[in-house]
Amino acid sequence: MSTPVASTTTSPVRLRAVDAPGQPDVTPELEELYRGFERELLVPLWTEIGDLMPAHPRSSAVPHLWRWDNLRALAAQAGDLVPVGRGGERRAIALANPALGGRPFATPTLWAAIQYLMPGEDAPEHRHTQHAFRFVVEGSGVWTVVGGDPVPMRRGDFLPQAGWNWHAHHNGTTEPMAWIDGLDIPYQYLTESQFFEFGREELSDAERTTPDRSRSERLWGHPGLRPLSVGEVGPGTPLLAYKWEFTDRALSDQLAMEQEGHGGTVEPGHAAVRYVDPATGGDVLPTLRTEFHRIARGAETAPVRETGSSVYQVFDGAGTVTVGEKTWSVTRGDLFVVPSWQPLSVRSEASGDDSDSGALDLFRFSDSPVFEALKLNRTSTDHREGTSR
Amino acid sequence: MSTPVASTTTSPVRLRAVDAPGQPDVTPELEELYRGFERELLVPLWTEIGDLMPAHPRSSAVPHLWRWDNLRALAAQAGDLVPVGRGGERRAIALANPALGGRPFATPTLWAAIQYLMPGEDAPEHRHTQHAFRFVVEGSGVWTVVGGDPVPMRRGDFLPQAGWNWHAHHNGTTEPMAWIDGLDIPYQYLTESQFFEFGREELSDAERTTPDRSRSERLWGHPGLRPLSVGEVGPGTPLLAYKWEFTDRALSDQLAMEQEGHGGTVEPGHAAVRYVDPATGGDVLPTLRTEFHRIARGAETAPVRETGSSVYQVFDGAGTVTVGEKTWSVTRGDLFVVPSWQPLSVRSEASGDDSDSGALDLFRFSDSPVFEALKLNRTSTDHREGTSR
Amino acid sequence: MSTPVASTTTSPVRLRAVDAPGQPDVTPELEELYRGFERELLVPLWTEIGDLMPAHPRSSAVPHLWRWDNLRALAAQAGDLVPVGRGGERRAIALANPALGGRPFATPTLWAAIQYLMPGEDAPEHRHTQHAFRFVVEGSGVWTVVGGDPVPMRRGDFLPQAGWNWHAHHNGTTEPMAWIDGLDIPYQYLTESQFFEFGREELSDAERTTPDRSRSERLWGHPGLRPLSVGEVGPGTPLLAYKWEFTDRALSDQLAMEQEGHGGTVEPGHAAVRYVDPATGGDVLPTLRTEFHRIARGAETAPVRETGSSVYQVFDGAGTVTVGEKTWSVTRGDLFVVPSWQPLSVRSEASGDDSDSGALDLFRFSDSPVFEALKLNRTSTDHREGTSR
Amino acid sequence: MSTPVASTTTSPVRLRAVDAPGQPDVTPELEELYRGFERELLVPLWTEIGDLMPAHPRSSAVPHLWRWDNLRALAAQAGDLVPVGRGGERRAIALANPALGGRPFATPTLWAAIQYLMPGEDAPEHRHTQHAFRFVVEGSGVWTVVGGDPVPMRRGDFLPQAGWNWHAHHNGTTEPMAWIDGLDIPYQYLTESQFFEFGREELSDAERTTPDRSRSERLWGHPGLRPLSVGEVGPGTPLLAYKWEFTDRALSDQLAMEQEGHGGTVEPGHAAVRYVDPATGGDVLPTLRTEFHRIARGAETAPVRETGSSVYQVFDGAGTVTVGEKTWSVTRGDLFVVPSWQPLSVRSEASGDDSDSGALDLFRFSDSPVFEALKLNRTSTDHREGTSR
Repeated sequence: MSTPVASTTTSPVRLRAVDAPGQPDVTPELEELYRGFERELLVPLWTEIGDLMPAHPRSSAVPHLWRWDNLRALAAQAGDLVPVGRGGERRAIALANPALGGRPFATPTLWAAIQYLMPGEDAPEHRHTQHAFRFVVEGSGVWTVVGGDPVPMRRGDFLPQAGWNWHAHHNGTTEPMAWIDGLDIPYQYLTESQFFEFGREELSDAERTTPDRSRSERLWGHPGLRPLSVGEVGPGTPLLAYKWEFTDRALSDQLAMEQEGHGGTVEPGHAAVRYVDPATGGDVLPTLRTEFHRIARGAETAPVRETGSSVYQVFDGAGTVTVGEKTWSVTRGDLFVVPSWQPLSVRSEASGDDSDSGALDLFRFSDSPVFEALKLNRTSTDHREGTSR
Repeated sequence: MSTPVASTTTSPVRLRAVDAPGQPDVTPELEELYRGFERELLVPLWTEIGDLMPAHPRSSAVPHLWRWDNLRALAAQAGDLVPVGRGGERRAIALANPALGGRPFATPTLWAAIQYLMPGEDAPEHRHTQHAFRFVVEGSGVWTVVGGDPVPMRRGDFLPQAGWNWHAHHNGTTEPMAWIDGLDIPYQYLTESQFFEFGREELSDAERTTPDRSRSERLWGHPGLRPLSVGEVGPGTPLLAYKWEFTDRALSDQLAMEQEGHGGTVEPGHAAVRYVDPATGGDVLPTLRTEFHRIARGAETAPVRETGSSVYQVFDGAGTVTVGEKTWSVTRGDLFVVPSWQPLSVRSEASGDDSDSGALDLFRFSDSPVFEALKLNRTSTDHREGTSR
Repeated sequence: MSTPVASTTTSPVRLRAVDAPGQPDVTPELEELYRGFERELLVPLWTEIGDLMPAHPRSSAVPHLWRWDNLRALAAQAGDLVPVGRGGERRAIALANPALGGRPFATPTLWAAIQYLMPGEDAPEHRHTQHAFRFVVEGSGVWTVVGGDPVPMRRGDFLPQAGWNWHAHHNGTTEPMAWIDGLDIPYQYLTESQFFEFGREELSDAERTTPDRSRSERLWGHPGLRPLSVGEVGPGTPLLAYKWEFTDRALSDQLAMEQEGHGGTVEPGHAAVRYVDPATGGDVLPTLRTEFHRIARGAETAPVRETGSSVYQVFDGAGTVTVGEKTWSVTRGDLFVVPSWQPLSVRSEASGDDSDSGALDLFRFSDSPVFEALKLNRTSTDHREGTSR
Repeated sequence: MSTPVASTTTSPVRLRAVDAPGQPDVTPELEELYRGFERELLVPLWTEIGDLMPAHPRSSAVPHLWRWDNLRALAAQAGDLVPVGRGGERRAIALANPALGGRPFATPTLWAAIQYLMPGEDAPEHRHTQHAFRFVVEGSGVWTVVGGDPVPMRRGDFLPQAGWNWHAHHNGTTEPMAWIDGLDIPYQYLTESQFFEFGREELSDAERTTPDRSRSERLWGHPGLRPLSVGEVGPGTPLLAYKWEFTDRALSDQLAMEQEGHGGTVEPGHAAVRYVDPATGGDVLPTLRTEFHRIARGAETAPVRETGSSVYQVFDGAGTVTVGEKTWSVTRGDLFVVPSWQPLSVRSEASGDDSDSGALDLFRFSDSPVFEALKLNRTSTDHREGTSR
């Protein structure tokens, strides 16, 4: 057995000669070899392989829950104290996974934030390669203006925003409004592929109008119908709003079919839809998958592991969520993260309020399209898989 | 103007209230807001946006050059001092970009290492989801055994190894041998998608034989011909060796065609081929692009920027390489990295030795397939692009 | 100049020695050569090239119009006289293009028929590789049962039926009903790829029920939403009914957007949608494209030529249609064919009845997916293209 | 039972009222109905369904064999008597399947012809959307000039020619030369998608030069290597010649691997390769599949049925071929056709000449890509499948 050897160089590389199985005793020659590695900016595999090439994914992130009430209260405070405008661009406050060093990353690849806009405020126009969406858990009255097309935002609506489209926000009401932003900021940060441009300083009057449906919905929001006037689109969906009424009905239909004995659900009591690009049937955004899950009162989902990470927001109902070793009671608006390869299961529980349907409604987004595009996706419903090494 | 406010919490989040344009003076209320962010594990966008969403990619890596002579000398020392075997798995020593905190990452997504095997040694069998390849700049005599198929390695040969294939190495000669390993270890580490399994402890006698061509080459190594006995393959190429004689001839053909007035080169004096999967015509590995470039004596390439990063190794000849602000003279075996969006240009220069062709031969690998799969790829031949923000 | 030479053999090949430019005088030797060709079942290119390889497509079909009133009257007569049952399978009466030798082919690749079902009748279950759809120009009350899923049929509904699905029809009302069948029967006949199987003799009671929406619509009929409970589907759309209300609204939306100055139409006054597979965004059937066009009152479409052929049915309104040299006044239910590379233009005209919207509504189906899959598609808006040879 | 009723109209439609199962007795009313169908150009399904929608494909073509010696002799005669030049374009003589009405169609979709060029002759430049290839069973000396690139033709070489490329032939030797042309002429004729243009009247001197390798081979003929100077290509392969030496070696490699116990063959003694587009790994032409099969001496292939049709040419060796009910002894150059869904098996037999390898070498082309693109492909190794209806 040997003593660790401290580096004496100024290289950023710092090596200890013994951090690996089957390594020899530390001799002066071996020490000299490691100092040579440091000097030449080299790192041996044999001391790193356990961390770099584990038997299965061991996420650097941890499961964590954020309470909606706390988020909204802080966002409202920010609404009073912090202006929104050019430079800062958005009054958005991001979830920072406690194991990711204080960075504003919900998971290693996903950004999730609460955004808050005061009455009459505009968030200025810009565009970026980062793919984004908005999901509305409460309130209404803000319009997102995408390429000149004003899109209303109401509870339950999902608004994807493919990269490199100009967009701004406008609150035309007398109330503040909060919603959730999801983006692939961490992913593009890590892979270093981001571009950003400022847009116009002011929206036009026409863009501050408040049509009930956006132009994108009038072109693309009809089931199974593609407008012939539009040629190639994308990457990313041309449909800028997925209205709550359709999502709600699709989920109700699945649960009703299950009750009639015709299947339709993922597992008993678990209805789910994926938001898709009507031009391709694929994910709405190249790097982000978005889904909505409804767990009927009393139902429980089987634990599932997946490569890649997810963020969930409780849209309605109440229940218990288990991610790896963590279990939480959740209620409307709460957000939680599922790191890569951590098993997730969810139970729907009756809330005190008997007037509701009792179903637990969950919005989800994940980085799954990245893994599928690169053939790196794996899913397991076996708790024991990959736990040995 | 305001004074920065130090955090007093134990949260990993540490915020300063003023790091953004257009921010208000620091008041007790604002301070309280930021402490609330820290407590709830939240980070505002407005203090981070400049770093997270830059006008164009600003790589966390820097251009750097490693000299082959130094690498080989240290690898030979390791051959004497450090055993290769189960646990450490490979005598591979990785390039550590000086700006990446001492991690064994050549760039944020790419791993590049020199591997060294002593006479008679075996590197034990394993498999992993990380995609890998070997490129041989000098020597011969090692066989890589992939799924029971022994593949010889000689100077100039390129040997891709798609993820999750069993593989081992065997040096059947009386000389040590060194080569380059390239993998997507950092990419899979950051996205947390890695699996790994140990294989058999010993190769069979049949696997230690030394056929001139691997079985994969006998099935897949004929131009424009696909074996009907093989159904769906991949992800990743089924051809396990791309022999130097073919690469060399393809490059010579391009330069000859250019001289005859028939084009064929990328730009004057610059021949180049991409290694491709014969079953798809696409990149050999889902996450790694590999190419070979030949710059005729005296020719110079136009500067190009690309999203994503590359590692180059000089295979032959001599020249000058400019990456961003850095310029180096390079010669056989030298390795250098090109971070995302840094312009690269290369000039071929006559070496002292007049016996050679004078061409500068460069092997390259990059993470381009990731960007193309996700539609995040951009290329610019304009020096000024994206420099403003 | 030479005299044609009659064949004296019994070979099916019959050749005349002089049917080509630049041919020599007919000598005994030349005659002997042609008799040799016949004997050996050979045909020279030089006498056939003008027909086989024309400068542009010259369809063997001709433009033709069928009047709905005549079709329906004959179908009703057939309802009285001809039973529907096993063996004949369907009371379907097909359009026979007058230039296709009396075969039941509307065009060389497309089948179009009126089908008629009496009160209480069933058309027996079968399946076939031919892709099919139904389109309803009037009436309601019939259910198509596809794989056990009863799908109602009402005016304006479009019901695609991908190959190899079991299906039957059931008229549960007290009125007869007529609709249009479209299939790729001629295409599969020419390429010889058809399979066919008889199904059960009787539908179950559950399949004779009359839900308002089919199960396929409850799973797949929500805009931009994909059910997670269903894995890979197809070839062919999983959505079995495209209801009139959605088609109508999509077309109205386009014309309204045009009037607001926001585009949305194919050309002025011409709204159009394609029926698409929600799982892929592509055509509903691998060999058939289906569309709906609305020409606003007074509008006229620019002439267009396309490779491949189409069948149109007037759904509503009145107008004038020009196909090549033919021009017809058309009204509800009328069917016409557009052969390959014949220019088509349509004008919408006010009917006598001022109560309607005045728009001319046209359902269309074509073989375009075949040409696109094989990269043989061409479109021209230039009347003169390809007319020279 | 009823008496057939003759038509009295001048419509191309001719109907007999009783040609279907379950039809009623012929009454005056029924007769009137059928006359109405004829008058309106309508044909009922129930009299046609057995022919149009059979239980499995029943080809209108029949198996047939053409002897090479006869073809070559007639082609040589044509060389003496019939000039080649503008208008007739090519001295090509096509196989006419005896069941296809004397049309120059080897099968309903495939054209196969022997082409013959005298010493010093040119076949003039043209282009067409029809996809084409040349395969050389004997001789050498002709160059095909494709887009200005002269491509030599020698025994065993395969030369694909994607649609809409300019091409001409030039015989620079003092001997006549014959080869086989394969095209999709019948397919494009039936689907009516053909375009054709005349090219220049004369080749340039540079195009009459005789390089050993074409420029396309120098760019694309290196295994697993793609030239970076070329962007998007196709549809159809950019490689204009697949040389015999590579095909021969690939087949020998497969048989050798089989003998070593490593598989590699389709079935015992049966090696086979598909010619593929190096840019995609797919078929060389959008509508034509081309393959080379080697049956070792004494081996026999298992019977296989496929949707779609094939033409085979014996390249070398001798054997017995069975297609449906027909069996032939075949030898070098002989051509035979396999209609859709007819089972094929082949036995290799020692020829009298003991000096050869005894293997039976077969070139094949088929319309399989059409069926695969449209998901209409089926294969069966079960003799009994689909024989019942």
